[in-house]
Amino acid sequence: MSDQFWGLKTFCLLTGGSQGIGRGFAVEFARKFGVGSHMLLLARSTPGLEQTRSLVKSANSDVNVQIHSVDLGKADLSVFKTILDHEDWKGESFDLMLLVHNAGSVGRADQLSKDMDDPQEWNRYLSLNLFHVTSLTAEFLRKFPSGHRCIINVTSLCAVKPFKSMGYYCVGKAAREMYFKVLAEENPELDIINYSPGPVDTDMVSGLINQIQDEETRHSFVSMRSSKTLVTVGETTQKVIDLLTSRGYKSGDRFDYFDPLPQ
Amino acid sequence: MSDQFWGLKTFCLLTGGSQGIGRGFAVEFARKFGVGSHMLLLARSTPGLEQTRSLVKSANSDVNVQIHSVDLGKADLSVFKTILDHEDWKGESFDLMLLVHNAGSVGRADQLSKDMDDPQEWNRYLSLNLFHVTSLTAEFLRKFPSGHRCIINVTSLCAVKPFKSMGYYCVGKAAREMYFKVLAEENPELDIINYSPGPVDTDMVSGLINQIQDEETRHSFVSMRSSKTLVTVGETTQKVIDLLTSRGYKSGDRFDYFDPLPQ
Repeated sequence: MSDQFWGLKTFCLLTGGSQGIGRGFAVEFARKFGVGSHMLLLARSTPGLEQTRSLVKSANSDVNVQIHSVDLGKADLSVFKTILDHEDWKGESFDLMLLVHNAGSVGRADQLSKDMDDPQEWNRYLSLNLFHVTSLTAEFLRKFPSGHRCIINVTSLCAVKPFKSMGYYCVGKAAREMYFKVLAEENPELDIINYSPGPVDTDMVSGLINQIQDEETRHSFVSMRSSKTLVTVGETTQKVIDLLTSRGYKSGDRFDYFDPLPQ
Repeated sequence: MSDQFWGLKTFCLLTGGSQGIGRGFAVEFARKFGVGSHMLLLARSTPGLEQTRSLVKSANSDVNVQIHSVDLGKADLSVFKTILDHEDWKGESFDLMLLVHNAGSVGRADQLSKDMDDPQEWNRYLSLNLFHVTSLTAEFLRKFPSGHRCIINVTSLCAVKPFKSMGYYCVGKAAREMYFKVLAEENPELDIINYSPGPVDTDMVSGLINQIQDEETRHSFVSMRSSKTLVTVGETTQKVIDLLTSRGYKSGDRFDYFDPLPQ
């Protein structure tokens, strides 16, 4: 694995790029990309993607940005293959290929785990939060079978710690993180990091506060918001940039916003 | 939570009761049940279930045993509701209600994680290894809304440690264990244990040795079998019995065969 991460001619595919953490990552990562880099942003919302594209172009006009509106919970291999074979970068070679799995949903936080009993609801939830992640990863690795390939999985404290009223999210994040740990174990040449961004002040938190059934968990978010202890998108983006710069993690590791940076 | 676990009038539902660990648990648990207990065994194989029933009856003729052949990967809520409403124990009350989630499959060990890219395969795998577990748990808790309800989730080291060529199994076990951790967090009155039985010498291990793609993982199983360091069904059954007798775990905990028993 190369010592250099930034300033390279990079191909970057990022999911959930229309808002929140995804937008923050896209803009600040692009700022550090080298000439000839390409960024491909996926999400459902076209207006959101367009706004992110415009912010990315302002941050670094040397980066070619493509956006693609797609419902990741319904996309299959052929969709990802078509997207990755886009003519804009066909035949191009890159010094770094970066895949950022940021898209995800919190699931039905109005349901407690004893009522999470419907296989179809599970299938829907995991299609967006796990299954498409594996399909996209597979196509990405087929498209780029060698070279420095880095995969960032946006995970959560919920992957390792149960929280009331967040059953789907906890299960989905635990499953997704384990998938990347196995991928890292099987493919030591890959550069994989499970990054937990901390409790970031995004629309997901607003949604949770409105929807969540458990009062204790709701209160913890309300209280973090009012005491301004929620992490900002800027702070968590800077932390993952510093982590990637450090090259100080082992592929497959989990790293949390509150962890000290590797020396 | 009561101090006594064995000798009570118990209702026990156990999945995967036709062979291996499930059969071992069924027979030895039943031996310790009180008069008037009922045991309901689910699995696909009717001959296997019949054999387990006969072993259970030999161990303790005071236990009423029902068997039900069902493909758990395809069962839904209504199937579980019907099974749980069986007239044999309709209106009966029990001192202990025990649900043992033992059924599970190893998944396509011939596939490495970079090829685990098919949402339908994921859906099939998790239907058997996660989704039905949530449906059955939900119906069990509706049928028995109060009293000492104990749930044993048969988990694995794979839930917390990635193994090459065992991607589906690792992801499924990680997801399932997190589901039970959330359930325990949300329902402190329940008695839930995630029990990892160790590498037990069952048909699953034989299947793995034949099918697994990664040589390192295959070798570790072959070597454990030839050096007789695989755990026997009898040993792991005794360990979980000792653990349940001790009452020395916190609901939602994970306990491995190799862990020392709580004092």
